[in-house]
Amino acid sequence: MIKVGIIGSTGYAGQELVRLLLSHKEAEIVWYGSQSYIGKRYYEVFGNMFEIVTDFCKGEKIEELTEKAEVIFTATPQGFCSSVLSEKILSRTKVIDLSADFRIKDAKVYESWYHLEHKSKELIKEAVYGLCEVNRNQIKNARLVANPGCYPTCSFLTIYPLAKEGLIDMNSIIIDAKSGASGAGRGAKVANLYCEVNENIKAYGVTTHRHTPEIEEQLTIASGVTTKINFTPHLVPMNRGILITAYANLKQTGITEDKIRKMYKDYYEKEPFIRVLDASKTPETRWVEGSNMVDINIAVDERTNRVVMMGAMDNLVKGAAGQAVQNMNLMFGIKETEGLLMAPLFP
Amino acid sequence: MIKVGIIGSTGYAGQELVRLLLSHKEAEIVWYGSQSYIGKRYYEVFGNMFEIVTDFCKGEKIEELTEKAEVIFTATPQGFCSSVLSEKILSRTKVIDLSADFRIKDAKVYESWYHLEHKSKELIKEAVYGLCEVNRNQIKNARLVANPGCYPTCSFLTIYPLAKEGLIDMNSIIIDAKSGASGAGRGAKVANLYCEVNENIKAYGVTTHRHTPEIEEQLTIASGVTTKINFTPHLVPMNRGILITAYANLKQTGITEDKIRKMYKDYYEKEPFIRVLDASKTPETRWVEGSNMVDINIAVDERTNRVVMMGAMDNLVKGAAGQAVQNMNLMFGIKETEGLLMAPLFP
Amino acid sequence: MIKVGIIGSTGYAGQELVRLLLSHKEAEIVWYGSQSYIGKRYYEVFGNMFEIVTDFCKGEKIEELTEKAEVIFTATPQGFCSSVLSEKILSRTKVIDLSADFRIKDAKVYESWYHLEHKSKELIKEAVYGLCEVNRNQIKNARLVANPGCYPTCSFLTIYPLAKEGLIDMNSIIIDAKSGASGAGRGAKVANLYCEVNENIKAYGVTTHRHTPEIEEQLTIASGVTTKINFTPHLVPMNRGILITAYANLKQTGITEDKIRKMYKDYYEKEPFIRVLDASKTPETRWVEGSNMVDINIAVDERTNRVVMMGAMDNLVKGAAGQAVQNMNLMFGIKETEGLLMAPLFP
Amino acid sequence: MIKVGIIGSTGYAGQELVRLLLSHKEAEIVWYGSQSYIGKRYYEVFGNMFEIVTDFCKGEKIEELTEKAEVIFTATPQGFCSSVLSEKILSRTKVIDLSADFRIKDAKVYESWYHLEHKSKELIKEAVYGLCEVNRNQIKNARLVANPGCYPTCSFLTIYPLAKEGLIDMNSIIIDAKSGASGAGRGAKVANLYCEVNENIKAYGVTTHRHTPEIEEQLTIASGVTTKINFTPHLVPMNRGILITAYANLKQTGITEDKIRKMYKDYYEKEPFIRVLDASKTPETRWVEGSNMVDINIAVDERTNRVVMMGAMDNLVKGAAGQAVQNMNLMFGIKETEGLLMAPLFP
Repeated sequence: MIKVGIIGSTGYAGQELVRLLLSHKEAEIVWYGSQSYIGKRYYEVFGNMFEIVTDFCKGEKIEELTEKAEVIFTATPQGFCSSVLSEKILSRTKVIDLSADFRIKDAKVYESWYHLEHKSKELIKEAVYGLCEVNRNQIKNARLVANPGCYPTCSFLTIYPLAKEGLIDMNSIIIDAKSGASGAGRGAKVANLYCEVNENIKAYGVTTHRHTPEIEEQLTIASGVTTKINFTPHLVPMNRGILITAYANLKQTGITEDKIRKMYKDYYEKEPFIRVLDASKTPETRWVEGSNMVDINIAVDERTNRVVMMGAMDNLVKGAAGQAVQNMNLMFGIKETEGLLMAPLFP
Repeated sequence: MIKVGIIGSTGYAGQELVRLLLSHKEAEIVWYGSQSYIGKRYYEVFGNMFEIVTDFCKGEKIEELTEKAEVIFTATPQGFCSSVLSEKILSRTKVIDLSADFRIKDAKVYESWYHLEHKSKELIKEAVYGLCEVNRNQIKNARLVANPGCYPTCSFLTIYPLAKEGLIDMNSIIIDAKSGASGAGRGAKVANLYCEVNENIKAYGVTTHRHTPEIEEQLTIASGVTTKINFTPHLVPMNRGILITAYANLKQTGITEDKIRKMYKDYYEKEPFIRVLDASKTPETRWVEGSNMVDINIAVDERTNRVVMMGAMDNLVKGAAGQAVQNMNLMFGIKETEGLLMAPLFP
Repeated sequence: MIKVGIIGSTGYAGQELVRLLLSHKEAEIVWYGSQSYIGKRYYEVFGNMFEIVTDFCKGEKIEELTEKAEVIFTATPQGFCSSVLSEKILSRTKVIDLSADFRIKDAKVYESWYHLEHKSKELIKEAVYGLCEVNRNQIKNARLVANPGCYPTCSFLTIYPLAKEGLIDMNSIIIDAKSGASGAGRGAKVANLYCEVNENIKAYGVTTHRHTPEIEEQLTIASGVTTKINFTPHLVPMNRGILITAYANLKQTGITEDKIRKMYKDYYEKEPFIRVLDASKTPETRWVEGSNMVDINIAVDERTNRVVMMGAMDNLVKGAAGQAVQNMNLMFGIKETEGLLMAPLFP
Repeated sequence: MIKVGIIGSTGYAGQELVRLLLSHKEAEIVWYGSQSYIGKRYYEVFGNMFEIVTDFCKGEKIEELTEKAEVIFTATPQGFCSSVLSEKILSRTKVIDLSADFRIKDAKVYESWYHLEHKSKELIKEAVYGLCEVNRNQIKNARLVANPGCYPTCSFLTIYPLAKEGLIDMNSIIIDAKSGASGAGRGAKVANLYCEVNENIKAYGVTTHRHTPEIEEQLTIASGVTTKINFTPHLVPMNRGILITAYANLKQTGITEDKIRKMYKDYYEKEPFIRVLDASKTPETRWVEGSNMVDINIAVDERTNRVVMMGAMDNLVKGAAGQAVQNMNLMFGIKETEGLLMAPLFP
């Protein structure tokens, strides 16, 4: 059994990690870290865990944790992981960081979008961007994995085949994203109250959202073309789910929708968590809820010669905790799908 | 592997059965029955099952099914199962009926509340009421199990210890129940449209709901006192979940809340799916979603000498498909919890 | 034009007062009080008021306010109004208090349920309980009106005719109440976050909710019988609306449902804001949203000789701001319905 | 009082017309048309209207209606109005058609997108496109007004100033639209059930939605440039509201966001129902609910030289019934804002 420590286990992503790891056959949680709830039983914070998890929440003493855990998940605010991580820690335990700290290779880009000084620049290079479908082999050997952001995961997987094949104008990409409210975290803010989110939709972080450079970096790597995108996230009144609707100009005319869909199916044929839908079906967040699936489809608008790329995913699973477990599985050489094969929950 | 046939697999309860059985280690589904979608792939009806279930929907030919399945689940409208069931079928396969047809022992009571003629009266006696926590031993040997209704399951388990111990006036019981919209089924009716259910709460079936006699029969058996209740269900704008708030007069004064809670904890100590909460916690449907759990607590109002009994459950799991699987496990002598130990999904 | 000052204008009830008064033909708001947002434009707090209300939020200087306003609404936490009110203020302006401070005649009862010392006990006697349908004449002459609580308003109006006529056992009354999330206020608490309230229903304040003694006092006055009730509120995932489902034993047998409904229709025949529904219809919060209406109906369960009394109302309108405006209209001798005749908003 | 007949009064848009006209000081409804509910009281179809509207629903006899009404609203499926309308009818009464029948000037375009034969081609030319902010003068003299579609209204008003000024590349426009479920109508379909819409977001009608040519035609007229757009609508789990997020390439570099916002404010300065927000605020549907307002803002992404244009509106008010009333006001020479000045309802 892999001994797992979680720092930040009382946020929504942390709790989802707990849920997933509880049914994982080769892992056990040995540390429920939470700065806010030290000394409370975990089930007092999340009632679903009553009689299931009886452990107490402990603080975020990462050094102590390296003696108990073989892998540490940090599901913490930006800046935490990079401020505590060190070569010493990595020499003892593997780390999967669910924050943005090690996702962006250029520390200056990180600092300018996150308005934070990066405290472990020397470790950035080593960190592997944990998008399993793309970096599977590097992940297997990594000590430090930067678990991708929710929007970047869904955006990238939705656009990847067309970007990789060079079929779209990379600087025409517009990503219009929609997320459920769990993406905003469990902090007590007026803007996240039930009556403020319910019966409403709004864009936020327009032109300034911090997932923008992460998506751009990955698309640049995939396509070989320096890419700048427009990225606009929206808050949707639902608990879970991300839907990406991305637009790009096709470089040539005459590429049919069927051909592109076939290409997507080929690209993702062996991927256990990616489903390329059939013609006329559009991805819907309800069909992936609670699962590690990403549903993808494309449509070609012949009138404008643009392709519409759509992807749906559960932001807490493939967009956070599920992908983190998938990374752990790869890093420990066990079956990549272990603990992640539950069917989506509907309705 | 137990070969399972499902008649009515394309309703919400049927689909939940599919979801649960997919992760059951000792069962496999061999027949996806659906009168409405014959010839369609199952995943065309429920997109979550894309690339997971590739079978076609077949009709409801129960005779043919007895040759293929060791157990048949009927998740069908009232009157269906009783109109097709026979000794011959039962001699070949076990049947777990999720409808109300075999729940009530007195056919006249059934007929007067359901406004239907019962077509298999001779089989009623044999049918075992599939409330596992109460009838575990009979279920193990049953050929025909009447899977309890959603409201009755939650109502009964919430009231049971006090009824059994004779501590409450059985004819003072008032059950105020609240259910999510999946309880109304997947039929296309104006009353169930999003805009009609959303931002609304209403009572329905006041004094006439068909689960009333089922609850009364079970409470009468448990207490030994002929019981008449008031039962008022309400429709709540959420997908899943039932909450029961039940009220009764305590026969004596001076029984403390702590003492009753202790009694509940003792009653349900060994039950894998019942959680009696600690003082000051109230059951909430969010904490049981997607799981087979029932959360229960009580409060005593010393001013009125009444006890308030509360229970929360997922109507599609413990209230339908989960309990059906639990019954199957008992009937086939496998671990009662097989396929049912997933932690609740939150948020 | 009546000059109106609002203290606590940036809570949900305060904002609803603003909305209603904006379309009131004989009132104008001269003071937008808000401790939390002093110096902000009102529309910065509530975006719906952009280009409609351009005033700044001011502090809660009630003395200064008496020079500018003819009536002051206090939509503030419990304890505020009673700590600032004085004979001097009342000699200058009328006050309508939306908090609980002056609702309960016995200060000891107030203090024991609210865990607060009452700072203006000498004014309690003068305060008129502002339930317009019952105390219309006293309200007309009042200087200080205690605007009823949301649950008490709906509970009382739903039970009143049967209580007044002496047809029910007053000590058998059980009130099971359900409210939308705006009733919990706009404070930033984890428990009120979207993901915590959505897809959930729970009871809260079981046996201890502070509206209990207020309901009991009014029912006692109406019936002439000292009344103790069970009152259990529930939080429902919707923005607005309260539904009351109340139960009581009929003192006699043989009183038909039709006869009781007829009595209700007679009682409320001239009331502009109370609608007694026809047989077989149940009150639903969606049908009263945004309006000052209370929808009521009853059902008799002949099997148990109990009556089920149901009422639906918008908690922010008739349960708070609408009733406050109705009180103001009465106090200033203008048409009682002024500003309150908009049809409910659906869907 | 203007005598008003409504054909299709029992859909969501029809009912909203009723709600708005009830508080209109110079109009009265004389005919509640509804093919589905002939002979029923209007309040039996919409319980909010109990004791408010006591009329019976009548059929859709448009000829008879011309004798009773001075203006007829047709809130009917596509193809109805064009199949019954005639010169004779228009010579007697004004008609405001809420369907798409007379919105598109080229009948062939209409027929190819709507897959319907147009039965009154001779009347298309006369019809005025009822976007009040743009065609105010023609509307004043019109006999037949084609009330704009919900998506086109919000899309056009959001893009109009930039299109009119020639500052954006008209063939780079991408419109990503989001709508609440009332936009899907009140028909009983599985896809519109509560459990199917709740906790979900999806795109639909990708590249094929019928509002596309309507938007293109209006943008072409405004800009003088033949315009083809990408238009992708999404279904959001909420009752009301449309949010438009539109993207376009700026033709020049160096135009600041502030300058464009200033231009929008100038364009719409005198418009009573358009609010151009201040910097850093994004339109949200909650701030316009129940009102005739359109909230608009823009953001410039200097990195990509694109402008993001955002607009929020209540689809049933400014997107249907409210705009229809606004058109009626113009056609009858009364105050344009009559019946439409209520503040938005929040929460």
